[in-house]
Amino acid sequence: MKNILILGAGRSATSLISYLLSAAVKYDYSVTVADTSPELIKQKTGSHARAVAVALDIANEALTRSEISKADIVVSMLPAFLHPRIAEQCVALKKSLVTASYVSPEMKGLDAAARNAGIILMNESGLDPGIDHASAMAVIDRIKNSGGNILSFKSYTGGLVAPESNDNPWGYKFTWNPRNVVLAGQGTARYIENGKYVYIPYHKLFTRTEKVHVEGTGDFEGYANRDSLGYRAIYGLENIPTLIRGTLRQPGYCEAWNALVQLGLTDDTYTVTDSGKMTYRQFTDSYLPPGKESVEARFAAYVNIPLKGTIMNMIRWLGIFEEAAVILNHATPAQILQALLEERWKLKDNDRDMIVMQHKFEYSTAANPAKTQQLVTSLVVKGDDSVHTAMAKTVGLPVGIVTKLILNGVIKLKGVCIPTVKEIYTPLLKELDDAGIRFIEKTR
Amino acid sequence: MKNILILGAGRSATSLISYLLSAAVKYDYSVTVADTSPELIKQKTGSHARAVAVALDIANEALTRSEISKADIVVSMLPAFLHPRIAEQCVALKKSLVTASYVSPEMKGLDAAARNAGIILMNESGLDPGIDHASAMAVIDRIKNSGGNILSFKSYTGGLVAPESNDNPWGYKFTWNPRNVVLAGQGTARYIENGKYVYIPYHKLFTRTEKVHVEGTGDFEGYANRDSLGYRAIYGLENIPTLIRGTLRQPGYCEAWNALVQLGLTDDTYTVTDSGKMTYRQFTDSYLPPGKESVEARFAAYVNIPLKGTIMNMIRWLGIFEEAAVILNHATPAQILQALLEERWKLKDNDRDMIVMQHKFEYSTAANPAKTQQLVTSLVVKGDDSVHTAMAKTVGLPVGIVTKLILNGVIKLKGVCIPTVKEIYTPLLKELDDAGIRFIEKTR
Repeated sequence: MKNILILGAGRSATSLISYLLSAAVKYDYSVTVADTSPELIKQKTGSHARAVAVALDIANEALTRSEISKADIVVSMLPAFLHPRIAEQCVALKKSLVTASYVSPEMKGLDAAARNAGIILMNESGLDPGIDHASAMAVIDRIKNSGGNILSFKSYTGGLVAPESNDNPWGYKFTWNPRNVVLAGQGTARYIENGKYVYIPYHKLFTRTEKVHVEGTGDFEGYANRDSLGYRAIYGLENIPTLIRGTLRQPGYCEAWNALVQLGLTDDTYTVTDSGKMTYRQFTDSYLPPGKESVEARFAAYVNIPLKGTIMNMIRWLGIFEEAAVILNHATPAQILQALLEERWKLKDNDRDMIVMQHKFEYSTAANPAKTQQLVTSLVVKGDDSVHTAMAKTVGLPVGIVTKLILNGVIKLKGVCIPTVKEIYTPLLKELDDAGIRFIEKTR
Repeated sequence: MKNILILGAGRSATSLISYLLSAAVKYDYSVTVADTSPELIKQKTGSHARAVAVALDIANEALTRSEISKADIVVSMLPAFLHPRIAEQCVALKKSLVTASYVSPEMKGLDAAARNAGIILMNESGLDPGIDHASAMAVIDRIKNSGGNILSFKSYTGGLVAPESNDNPWGYKFTWNPRNVVLAGQGTARYIENGKYVYIPYHKLFTRTEKVHVEGTGDFEGYANRDSLGYRAIYGLENIPTLIRGTLRQPGYCEAWNALVQLGLTDDTYTVTDSGKMTYRQFTDSYLPPGKESVEARFAAYVNIPLKGTIMNMIRWLGIFEEAAVILNHATPAQILQALLEERWKLKDNDRDMIVMQHKFEYSTAANPAKTQQLVTSLVVKGDDSVHTAMAKTVGLPVGIVTKLILNGVIKLKGVCIPTVKEIYTPLLKELDDAGIRFIEKTR
């Protein structure tokens, strides 16, 4: 009986664990779930016959090593920074590893050692990165293999709230790490468009949005992710004139978020003096030029939005003008804002979230090189409730599927991999499709 | 005969070396100047009888130690990051040290060891930090000693070009490290005003200027320095309702500089792909939204300035719209901008620079606590030419003076010091005044 070791039973592991427990019955696996909290493991595994719970703090190297040595494959849903160390242990013990994290330089450095050990270090196996790679490469390879030439590739993904659960003016609730949402886009966005490099500093990012229409779902705003340029090599599109990757939000979100960025409320580099002694109104006032007008009026003037209007209503709804006490002391502005947003943007028990992904390609064919054709492939996945979210499904399922594919010998690759290769993406997309995670393709 | 060891014979050491050579004759010192370039030493010392030249690379620890051991006091004009290591050697060899650098945490950590060794580690002895501390504390102590209560302290300093040498639309030329000028203000400015903390993110900093009038010299713009809050403790003004420290520029400079900041051209965190294959016009275009209008028109619209007007003329004059090739390859935007500015903002041989410093105090007296009084003390120093700059004088002279005061036993303090104490600032300001570096005080 093959044994799968899952490290981490947090929110993102829900769908993964239930998928692998089902597979365990079919393929005769045992699934060991390790977490610091036995409570959390119990919540995820129930009393499933195939599940084994292990209380494990990853800092305990001896116990971690012992559990890895007993496994046939390791799946880690732990924070990304822990993965190079876990991967080293997997290489030493000759056990394959699956994660949903980006390949770090340290991880990349283990490629030769992993090949020598005869194992795969499979990364970027979730939604984004993960399903995005697989679904994009399936199209890219198809166009290339039929002699086509790809001129433009724009790819946007958003973790949103489903329209039926959208009851706040931002059209947004947290379905993933709130800190990452608050800090999103910091740095400089880089992409290439019509052969020209484009650079957008953070303080301009949310003003440089693109309208993205997803058929059957509606209109969204896309803002550019930090570095699209590196994806030219990853996708084998070194000479493509246009390549943009970005994030989707509901219309209006970016303009309102930009106002918070302009004020400086997303800064995470210093702590606000005596923040615990302030009200949110005083906190906000600290970022505004002084004056006789109200905090609201000075805010609207400073960030250049109408005092009466949709955007101002969205800002007001957050509570940054309220006289309520700031909860956190010695906190950064980003932490103070995050604490407020976690109250406002909380998924209710029966709320459904929604994942939207869209790849838009422009290409010419060998038969008709002068004509530009368009291919749009889109994915919309809704969650069931606040636990079985679309986010948990679309991250957990592909991780579970590739784990099974490796264990069953369908994926035979060794070394550091991501799902951009046919041997991985073909069976992965097939099984995702069977599970209802299905791309709709339109050509024009 | 006492021996002074000066480490570094660069631009900032010109006035320092000539001051200490004069003092050497009067007080029977020998002055050893150590630098990697004997050429540079020769330029600064000529064939002065009291000068000894030593070719020294500070990386050569043995030779550095040997030179320090032969000295009675060490003066370092080397980059600030080298000072903790030099200070450690000075402590070990029981030699006092003078620098113009900020006290770093590592330097601060040597305080007890320096006291035990019976030496002073004298830092922040230049212009800013340096003369600013001395001149501010002289006023602060005077007001406090007469029972007064300080309500507001605003302090601005600028290294500018003298009006008679001002022949460019920015009213600015480099008189100091160009890189520091390009990166100035990055981070978040923090100060306190009327009892309220104020935070200004970098992308708003150059829009939040204050008009500063300096009698007899004219009007300037001041923008806030990064952290004024820490100066409450340094100046013993823990409960002051208003404390702002800032930098002076000619009117118009900040609005035009802000346009470059908005575009993202002062970013030093990433390199521009293939920058060496671009023209400046293409480089600038990379930061703009695409469109059919000219680069200039899109720039003006993007940063929200009139296409025809003073600010646009200042920007245009820099050359960022020109078809000339970018000099640097694999360079950050800040490096590309700096290279351009170094051509445009170069001091000509006979150009005179100008240092302007102004402290403005509001306070009440014990005799009349209800009345707010004002005291403004200002310093204006002009350079002689592009070598004997006001910047070199106002940095080098105070370093030389405190070195002499320590050597002659006037300053007897031990440990890590800055010139905020009476024992230092009184004789320092006296001798600066004698040398024509003179504050003019006005009360109202």
